[in-house]
Amino acid sequence: MPDRPGLQGPVLIVGAGLLGTSIGLALRRRGISVWLRDVSPENLRAAMGLGAGQLVPDIAPPPQLVVVAVPPDVIGETLRWALGAHRGAVVTDVGSIKTGPLEQLRASGLSGLSRYVGGHPMAGSERSGPLAASAAMFDGRPWAVTPHQDSATEAVDVVLSLVAAVGALPVRMSPDEHDRAVARTSHLPHLLASLVAGRLAEAPPGHLALSGQGVRDVTRVAAGDPELWQQIVTGNAPAVVHLLREVREQLDALIAAVSKSNREELVRILSRGVEGTRAIPGKHGGPAREMASVFVSVPDRAGEMGRLFADVAASGVSIEDIHIDHDPGRPTGLFELVVADDSSEHLLAALESRGWVTHR
Amino acid sequence: MPDRPGLQGPVLIVGAGLLGTSIGLALRRRGISVWLRDVSPENLRAAMGLGAGQLVPDIAPPPQLVVVAVPPDVIGETLRWALGAHRGAVVTDVGSIKTGPLEQLRASGLSGLSRYVGGHPMAGSERSGPLAASAAMFDGRPWAVTPHQDSATEAVDVVLSLVAAVGALPVRMSPDEHDRAVARTSHLPHLLASLVAGRLAEAPPGHLALSGQGVRDVTRVAAGDPELWQQIVTGNAPAVVHLLREVREQLDALIAAVSKSNREELVRILSRGVEGTRAIPGKHGGPAREMASVFVSVPDRAGEMGRLFADVAASGVSIEDIHIDHDPGRPTGLFELVVADDSSEHLLAALESRGWVTHR
Repeated sequence: MPDRPGLQGPVLIVGAGLLGTSIGLALRRRGISVWLRDVSPENLRAAMGLGAGQLVPDIAPPPQLVVVAVPPDVIGETLRWALGAHRGAVVTDVGSIKTGPLEQLRASGLSGLSRYVGGHPMAGSERSGPLAASAAMFDGRPWAVTPHQDSATEAVDVVLSLVAAVGALPVRMSPDEHDRAVARTSHLPHLLASLVAGRLAEAPPGHLALSGQGVRDVTRVAAGDPELWQQIVTGNAPAVVHLLREVREQLDALIAAVSKSNREELVRILSRGVEGTRAIPGKHGGPAREMASVFVSVPDRAGEMGRLFADVAASGVSIEDIHIDHDPGRPTGLFELVVADDSSEHLLAALESRGWVTHR
Repeated sequence: MPDRPGLQGPVLIVGAGLLGTSIGLALRRRGISVWLRDVSPENLRAAMGLGAGQLVPDIAPPPQLVVVAVPPDVIGETLRWALGAHRGAVVTDVGSIKTGPLEQLRASGLSGLSRYVGGHPMAGSERSGPLAASAAMFDGRPWAVTPHQDSATEAVDVVLSLVAAVGALPVRMSPDEHDRAVARTSHLPHLLASLVAGRLAEAPPGHLALSGQGVRDVTRVAAGDPELWQQIVTGNAPAVVHLLREVREQLDALIAAVSKSNREELVRILSRGVEGTRAIPGKHGGPAREMASVFVSVPDRAGEMGRLFADVAASGVSIEDIHIDHDPGRPTGLFELVVADDSSEHLLAALESRGWVTHR
């Protein structure tokens, strides 16, 4: 049952990849009719096999909503096709960039632009394709909804009802604001992680034996698909270049400060970074909280991890994040449990009383 | 009981902060005599209270080993004092930089340099001070041991026996190689994470609502103490500046590629990053393995996490890493379980058969 009266379906999903198939699965779970299109018969077959929807019937009512879930480079032309081919439907997309496709639509002189409202779920995976899809993919995730100045209120409502139906949380902003926001929170971190990781690829033999958790965290996202990321970054070039130039200025300042041992300037740059880490919103969208880490040595034996988390659960402390330290050559793992600063003492005491070797 | 006949003690630890106190605790667990010195009476009292060692007795045998665990800026002068004041002792340190202090010692014209062997445990915490210390801090962690060309074999053996006694794994390399290695695996990632985080500090209101797990991972280390990192980076300036200049070249190439939509060049830079993430050694020091992620929706209720990990343990699949997605406004958490690629299907099936909502 949809949460809002707005979404009755049928919903036509164009592009049965990771996101399109996941949306289909989430809507089918709600009993909404879903039709699927894809240029790849394999993708279509896989998505239908998973229960994400069916082919468009020969005789069919017009869809209420068309969701465009194709690769970044072809979103603009697919939106244009959708607005022209389905003149009674609201049209949205799930692309990472919102201004470029909108400009393409505007430039095409197409009527019906009031039926288009962009969207962008903050969800995904380092994998791609329908086989990696899941009805749970959007559970509790932010989903940017980006009306433009001519979007009809009713069209915005239909897209908001899609977001609600798949379990995501709408974050409303303009297309331009969206693109500048993701340039900062997603594209810039990805590109800089990639530059750091690139230096690892050139490391002399043996040097990476000193890799700790820090470098693993910093570079993890850089493992993403270069072809997809190339399209995302190229599609958001103005906002990305603006930030990259800011980083270059700061990098020049950093090189000067380190070269000349200008410690004050170095502390200024590093302190700005500390501020930035504190600006990221905390769990449940609230203000960022002071966090603390509790480290626990866990024998690499079946059942020990289960025992640890049963003890953590018994302590009543809510775990915000976990890191497992990769352990070169030892049958123990070091677990880092990230908790609110004011509950770390309690967790430490609770785990120590149950025999765990811990430290802060 | 020490693992090697080489370490009988007493061991004099100079600097009762996070690392010095942790070493004291680990050695006391082995029954080795530990003496502590610190310019701060509060640190000394706290470290002794935790059982990390005692004050140097008035009448005492000479120490076998002096461990210098002071802030980066004062390591050189403290090593010099230790070699002069304890002429029968081997001297080591736990600083992040190895060539600078060695050069200071050489320049001082001091005799006894053969008794000095540098060291650097790859362990620590975003916290500092003796109260954050733990006997388990070095369990299974790499510990760089960096003999210089005049280090005596016996002195190297004593430092190796210290590493073994605290449960760490020695990684032997020259001081120069060490400094170049940590510039790449630690200092560069820290500085670039700090530049990315600095851009977050300047984000317009509302933009950070789109923060996902990626940006959190990339910027996590940037929360570290600016004063400490300023000393570390300044102490390793030549190696750090060398890498920062490489990054600036790549950044210029990146800005040009994005500005001109040079997609081939962009894919080249991003692919180099993918290679880098694969070059980091895997768990247990083996070659990096192909990893896959299994996502599980976990209700935010006491006991659910314990039940999940009991089920994971029952599946027999070894978890390499875990991320918990911060969940803005919902009573479920999304757990990402990172496992070897070839066991992800088995884990998915095992969890689904026990009623968990999963996806890849």
